[in-house]
Amino acid sequence: MAPTLKGGDAALLPEFPRGPLDSYRARASFSWKELALFTEGEDMLRFKKTIFSALENDPLFARSPGAHLSLEKYRELSFLRCKRIFEYDFLSAGDMFESPLKVSTLIQCLGMYDWSLAAKYVLHTLIFGSAVFSSGSERHFTYIQKIFSMEIFGCFALTELSHGSNTKAIRTTAHYNPATEEFIIHSPDFEAAKFWVGNMGKTATHAVVFAQLHMPGGQCHGLHPFIIQIRDLKTLLPMPGVMVGDIGKKLGQNGLDNGFAVFHKVRVPRHNLLNRMGDVTPEGTYVSPFKDARQRFGASLGSLSWGRVVIMAMAVTNLKLAVSIAARFSATRRQFGPTEDEEIPVLEYQTQTESCSVAQAGVQWAQSWLTATSASPVQAILVSQTPELLQWRLLPYLAAAYALDHFSTSLFLDMVELQRGLAAGDRSARQAELGREIHALASAGKPLASWTAQQGIQECREACGGHGYLAMNRLGVLRDDNDPNCTYEGDNNVLLQQTSNYLLGLLALRVRDGARIRSPLKSVDFLDSYPSILDQRFEVSSVADCLDSAVALAAYKWLVCYLLRETHEKLNQEKRSGSGDFEARNNCQLKDDAVALVDVIAPPDFVLDSPIGRADGELYKNLWGAILQDSQVLERASWWPEFSVNKPVIGSVKSKL
Amino acid sequence: MAPTLKGGDAALLPEFPRGPLDSYRARASFSWKELALFTEGEDMLRFKKTIFSALENDPLFARSPGAHLSLEKYRELSFLRCKRIFEYDFLSAGDMFESPLKVSTLIQCLGMYDWSLAAKYVLHTLIFGSAVFSSGSERHFTYIQKIFSMEIFGCFALTELSHGSNTKAIRTTAHYNPATEEFIIHSPDFEAAKFWVGNMGKTATHAVVFAQLHMPGGQCHGLHPFIIQIRDLKTLLPMPGVMVGDIGKKLGQNGLDNGFAVFHKVRVPRHNLLNRMGDVTPEGTYVSPFKDARQRFGASLGSLSWGRVVIMAMAVTNLKLAVSIAARFSATRRQFGPTEDEEIPVLEYQTQTESCSVAQAGVQWAQSWLTATSASPVQAILVSQTPELLQWRLLPYLAAAYALDHFSTSLFLDMVELQRGLAAGDRSARQAELGREIHALASAGKPLASWTAQQGIQECREACGGHGYLAMNRLGVLRDDNDPNCTYEGDNNVLLQQTSNYLLGLLALRVRDGARIRSPLKSVDFLDSYPSILDQRFEVSSVADCLDSAVALAAYKWLVCYLLRETHEKLNQEKRSGSGDFEARNNCQLKDDAVALVDVIAPPDFVLDSPIGRADGELYKNLWGAILQDSQVLERASWWPEFSVNKPVIGSVKSKL
Repeated sequence: MAPTLKGGDAALLPEFPRGPLDSYRARASFSWKELALFTEGEDMLRFKKTIFSALENDPLFARSPGAHLSLEKYRELSFLRCKRIFEYDFLSAGDMFESPLKVSTLIQCLGMYDWSLAAKYVLHTLIFGSAVFSSGSERHFTYIQKIFSMEIFGCFALTELSHGSNTKAIRTTAHYNPATEEFIIHSPDFEAAKFWVGNMGKTATHAVVFAQLHMPGGQCHGLHPFIIQIRDLKTLLPMPGVMVGDIGKKLGQNGLDNGFAVFHKVRVPRHNLLNRMGDVTPEGTYVSPFKDARQRFGASLGSLSWGRVVIMAMAVTNLKLAVSIAARFSATRRQFGPTEDEEIPVLEYQTQTESCSVAQAGVQWAQSWLTATSASPVQAILVSQTPELLQWRLLPYLAAAYALDHFSTSLFLDMVELQRGLAAGDRSARQAELGREIHALASAGKPLASWTAQQGIQECREACGGHGYLAMNRLGVLRDDNDPNCTYEGDNNVLLQQTSNYLLGLLALRVRDGARIRSPLKSVDFLDSYPSILDQRFEVSSVADCLDSAVALAAYKWLVCYLLRETHEKLNQEKRSGSGDFEARNNCQLKDDAVALVDVIAPPDFVLDSPIGRADGELYKNLWGAILQDSQVLERASWWPEFSVNKPVIGSVKSKL
Repeated sequence: MAPTLKGGDAALLPEFPRGPLDSYRARASFSWKELALFTEGEDMLRFKKTIFSALENDPLFARSPGAHLSLEKYRELSFLRCKRIFEYDFLSAGDMFESPLKVSTLIQCLGMYDWSLAAKYVLHTLIFGSAVFSSGSERHFTYIQKIFSMEIFGCFALTELSHGSNTKAIRTTAHYNPATEEFIIHSPDFEAAKFWVGNMGKTATHAVVFAQLHMPGGQCHGLHPFIIQIRDLKTLLPMPGVMVGDIGKKLGQNGLDNGFAVFHKVRVPRHNLLNRMGDVTPEGTYVSPFKDARQRFGASLGSLSWGRVVIMAMAVTNLKLAVSIAARFSATRRQFGPTEDEEIPVLEYQTQTESCSVAQAGVQWAQSWLTATSASPVQAILVSQTPELLQWRLLPYLAAAYALDHFSTSLFLDMVELQRGLAAGDRSARQAELGREIHALASAGKPLASWTAQQGIQECREACGGHGYLAMNRLGVLRDDNDPNCTYEGDNNVLLQQTSNYLLGLLALRVRDGARIRSPLKSVDFLDSYPSILDQRFEVSSVADCLDSAVALAAYKWLVCYLLRETHEKLNQEKRSGSGDFEARNNCQLKDDAVALVDVIAPPDFVLDSPIGRADGELYKNLWGAILQDSQVLERASWWPEFSVNKPVIGSVKSKL
């Protein structure tokens, strides 16, 4: 039965203004209001409306025509807006525990407005906050209260200039000194500078810093998190021994101040070790509930799934915004038509399939001509780059927005279940399996969502032609702001390997031990019958059958089984032939020439103008040099008293909602 | 035999600085210097070096750290740099005729430095200049001299706010008045404003404006080009009746001032009609060497191939820059390795194939889970979006850069041959066929090159991880500046239809009349044997065979034949079933719901923040309103005397080269 709005609540979903979109709205096969209620529920719709209305009615959030904000001004605005979110207090800490999905909704609402603001708020409250909460112990809970009153402002510092994905290779050190009961935090050189840290550039006063823990006896216990004050609370100037600055302009999210920090023998009290996973006694003895560094590190990374699940929701949000813009544009932009005098909306063309094979023929012909005539010495390795855009333009992305939205929401709720089990002390095998399954799903779901969004936004931008290239229409901002979703919290390709290792592991157990493949969410159960799935053949007699989701599902299952079997066999074969695990996965070819091939086509460094692409290959020196050449890199922000003096009164403008 | 440098010319290709890239350079299977000489030739290498050295040694072209340029400042710099290019006079008008390929090289060199500068220069000298030259007659040649002395500054105004691709629907009018021997140029409303015109925003004094020519008797002769002064040469203020302004910030190329113009009954002398294709006598009689408007318009659009061929070269240039940056980064960035202490360059991973099927398995599994669990009402139309990125990362794009470079250069030379034939008065059937073939190749080659570059730049940006997201590393600028190549001078999808119509036309002749398929460049000759090609089967026994370019070529030929036959048959079938040509190509489905589906997911207008995506669908009103809300839209640039007073002395700094 279709859900209906309670009496008097029609204002929650008001009618749209009359206009050129009326005819499409009249022809829709369903009621948009009923679908909105069905997918979100009245409570969530009301929550969103509260947030959106607050922002729209507050001049601090006014959109600025032309968007000519300088980096400095944009960062100031983002900070002031972040502070105001505390004053609105849309969601108390209690609400967060009671209705975790509202946390996700709040992030998405802020992100729909501006991802710089959302990122700034989330990095402080959720990333920094939950790192302290989940990695620390009772002695650190005083920080939590300071976080939610904005007495301090935080950031999360793991990545270094020369290491991201390979966290084990992080080089910042923490040496314990029992004489003073302090840790000495140190960056051996600028390549070990903490880098890319959101909020660190201009605003953070505290950082959770990951460093290799060394004991007086010389033993290293691996990466541990420390809470370190990096700026003075009154002046926002750096603390002694801390060189902290802004890494400069990015492709997007420039309202967020990403920064770097180099520590020169910075002394921090023993209590600043976030000691949930491992602790040091005053005398200098290391104690841990885990038996080795590997297990301890694995447990501390378990929470990384959260980041991936949230990124999925962020990417879906961007895709929703982009298809909304492009679909409305396409339904009102008219071009060409059946007669000289009549033009039809371009949306009518974009669902068109015949034109696609027509266009495909054209692009394939160009490919064939290129292959036939090219005198290039590397033509043999040219791989077809048929733009898949040609099939349909917008509708697949509109469908993907809906489907991925459901995927990310359900995974979010699975994460909540996992987290509640952890909090309740559940140490069952099912709980551990659920953790692994969610980790694998999030590690594949994040690439799927972020890439789909990135391609979809680009398609939307092109579908809007020149008008899509105008900054005011926002498709560029969406593309730029979505882009990092493809690489942070784990590069997509690296994450997919994690998922695949999970799947290969299950398959290996099945093959070797005859173990049954099952998982708590049942996402992998079909793999158990992989031999019979591989025997299936595609037998569909009509186009209508293809629209049955069971057909698509069967095809995906076949493909997963096929790819896994191929990979499994290849890896086994290479292991038998004697290459080690690492080489087995990285058999190299064809690449020794890559550098010389670009030496031919690259212009001089001055023209190429890219520190990471200079001919000398001195990647980090060039990057570090360029960052320090920018203006005001190490200077505090001119608006520093906005943190130090003008403190927010939490919930002070809540009554206006 | 490998080409060698003349004695004493080693400085032309100096050694690279020693460093981390040495080991790759040592392992290359060829000499990069020999390949550079082979692909470009010594003369062209020298020409490029002259340009690059001039820019590098001139403080006006200094790179600014951090790139915090305001729109105003960036546009001023681009104009000053454009002026300086005239002072360098790298290529005289005579040189251009003698060595047309150098024109392309000059554009690419300027573009490698900054596309805003290249576009500004090209739009004035080549687009505006050649429009006057090729559409005008002797009485207009006085403008040519003024263009090359920068006495005037020009732009090319065809597109309007509500019409781009469908040029026949352009609505600006030109009514001839025999009494005063003048045309009255008029924009009926703001939707007919000339829009997107490069150089028009702040700098152009003259525009070639396309308008529908109306005679006193009421007859309309279709689109004709007029040369119209839009700004005063001394003050750069708008001429009476002309409302001219800047359309604002774009996703890229912001050093270029794209603008709009609305004409209110602007009177221009009869002589300002560019009269090559059609003229009006003083008394008001229309005369033309063409028998109808359709034929005349077709002839005037023939020169559009130039734009497409140049865009191909621009896209290839961007791809070269991006792969240069990413390949050097990947060869020096180390992450993970066979042991805890040894890490290897990420380039070693990216050519890896096993890991690809591993990753593919992961993403397909996520897809299957999504399909199995999604409760979305539109899941049935979800189309798989498998990221093709997973196959290989950089090498295919490096190969594509080489292959597309050759394709675009050879097509450029074909265009030169075509142009020389036209100039020599060649009216042979071969000349006409060559024109059609080149038009079709350029219309498919431009989409192929621009999409490949756009995808390649995105892949390069992701392959560089976070560092690729730093603005200073330039991958964002390349993506933003390359982006319009996908939609201007004809949206890629529209262009591909033009190519496909050419191919379908050939096939139809072959099927209906048994005509032999042949073309001057022989690019379509294989279609003649399409039945036997379609009978071919893929019979390759080893991976080595796949590396044979003949195998790839045969596969492309088969695919083209297959797609053409399918399309041909489908179109015939639909025509027989009674739908007209237009509908036959635009059978609509599944889209009536699109607007209602986005109504559910779109946030309120304030949050969506996109004039073209507002819920009321008033596309042009919203866009026009937003443009006029920006600051300084109609104001002249603060640096206007740089045009009016400080004139360049052509070639004045040439001696410094």
